[in-house]
Amino acid sequence: MQRIVLHEVGPRDGLQVEKTVVPTPRKEAWIKSLLAAGIDLVQAGSFVHPEKVPQMADSDALIRGLVDSGVDPGRLSGLVLNEKGLDRALASGVGLVCMGVSASDTHSRKNTGMGTDEATARIVATARKAVEAGRQVQVSVQSAFGCGFEGPVAEERVLAIVRAYAEAGLNHVSLADTAGHAWPEQVERLYAAAAKAAPGADWACHFHDTYGTGMANLYAALRSGVTTFESSFAGLGGCPFTRVAAGNVATEDVVHAFQREGRRTDVDLAGLVEVSRSVAEFFGREMPGRVQKTGPIGPRTPAAPAGEAKG
Amino acid sequence: MQRIVLHEVGPRDGLQVEKTVVPTPRKEAWIKSLLAAGIDLVQAGSFVHPEKVPQMADSDALIRGLVDSGVDPGRLSGLVLNEKGLDRALASGVGLVCMGVSASDTHSRKNTGMGTDEATARIVATARKAVEAGRQVQVSVQSAFGCGFEGPVAEERVLAIVRAYAEAGLNHVSLADTAGHAWPEQVERLYAAAAKAAPGADWACHFHDTYGTGMANLYAALRSGVTTFESSFAGLGGCPFTRVAAGNVATEDVVHAFQREGRRTDVDLAGLVEVSRSVAEFFGREMPGRVQKTGPIGPRTPAAPAGEAKG
Repeated sequence: MQRIVLHEVGPRDGLQVEKTVVPTPRKEAWIKSLLAAGIDLVQAGSFVHPEKVPQMADSDALIRGLVDSGVDPGRLSGLVLNEKGLDRALASGVGLVCMGVSASDTHSRKNTGMGTDEATARIVATARKAVEAGRQVQVSVQSAFGCGFEGPVAEERVLAIVRAYAEAGLNHVSLADTAGHAWPEQVERLYAAAAKAAPGADWACHFHDTYGTGMANLYAALRSGVTTFESSFAGLGGCPFTRVAAGNVATEDVVHAFQREGRRTDVDLAGLVEVSRSVAEFFGREMPGRVQKTGPIGPRTPAAPAGEAKG
Repeated sequence: MQRIVLHEVGPRDGLQVEKTVVPTPRKEAWIKSLLAAGIDLVQAGSFVHPEKVPQMADSDALIRGLVDSGVDPGRLSGLVLNEKGLDRALASGVGLVCMGVSASDTHSRKNTGMGTDEATARIVATARKAVEAGRQVQVSVQSAFGCGFEGPVAEERVLAIVRAYAEAGLNHVSLADTAGHAWPEQVERLYAAAAKAAPGADWACHFHDTYGTGMANLYAALRSGVTTFESSFAGLGGCPFTRVAAGNVATEDVVHAFQREGRRTDVDLAGLVEVSRSVAEFFGREMPGRVQKTGPIGPRTPAAPAGEAKG
């Protein structure tokens, strides 16, 4: 059975769009519970300008605190948007540095002020610096399956970024469906093309569930040989820069589904469900994740004896 | 590209669990709108005892009224549970008669008072009678992928029913995930085994989205050669006889996803979305379907000129 790495991105991709700024100790407790449940990697924060995304302003302190309290830095990731952010990431001690480029020129300009080509050159240079500093690096292509502003995104635009990554020796690559436009056949085609463009790369996927295809896309990625699955506890999230966006596929729903086939049965699903329920409780609203509402498919009442069945 | 038949089951599987009994003219308007949007088949009601499921008490009158007003009876289906129900179905003029057996003994007894074997014999006999009366017949296996009471359901129990159908010449078969326990790999395995047990049959699928795998299961069925897709507008529904159950995958989400790959582009998605929105409005609550909330992925604002991008 293929290797599966679970990368929880809710504390970054989910919490960054919430109106309520979550207190650092609350984030720390959630992250520790997710790791204790057996999630491999947790994206704890984003090294973005604190005034731009106040929800992420504590990322440096949060990660440093987690590492100081004994969390393996290799199980923590942080999102880096530029060189300044990389310096902060390196100082925080985070083990995995994530960065990306949007394949949509419009999305890229809205996010960074640069078009895709310029942003690719900058991110490749920054990623190389992170590698040279001895960190693990994951690079991503945002809006790889479509864009909330532009609509369809040409496959060639995605592959050009993938090739730039491969040429720079950046072999951990995530294709992200930022707006939720992907559908399963497209997912299989894009990963097949990407694997040709960057042979030997390790692939990750990141699906938002805006139009209800998130889980189907994730299974298409699984069939395509993707090994790292990014998801968000309770299904938190969205993208502040696209017009319509829902959260990522819910982590506990992914683990629940995978475990049905005997995958990642080492993960403590009940523990995950508990964390996601505490998220719903904290925000005081219903979350998109299913299994935290229904509970897992568990041991059921034994079948009633025939005579009592109608009773 | 393979043939795809869209079978809307919301007016039966969805409305039967609602506390509010929907007035007949309201149902009639929804069904006509669904057909006008290009849905191939609509399950308008259930010929169950009116006292048992009051929401379905108008099924006879509803279907007769639809047929009398010019709706092609071949585009209407009705659920039949026993011989008495069949007589009512035949009198109503409905074109497609649907009936089924649960592969779970406990579920079967709760629903019918009979275990699976006895229920199979009865349903096969009733289905033969419907065929002899010149009606189209679809037979199903409920709880084919797991049971809310019993948990896992042995594949052999499903295949035994499928074989009994095949031996009786009943070649339109639906496998139903009543409780929502299915996952994609299981779906592919079960349809492969079922195709061996009943070579040449036409297959339908019916997935509830209890644990978030509904759409992924539907794509697994598509890859398995299934041609008929049962779904529920706005994602209405559940099963009153299982402990935890959500509605079917939402029709408009299925059509939206299929159209991304160029499938069933003849269906008027905007029309479907409108019907589903009117369902949400009627019940005054948020529905599970995604696309009726977000709107379809449509034409977007043209990309902003570079100079204005940050503005």
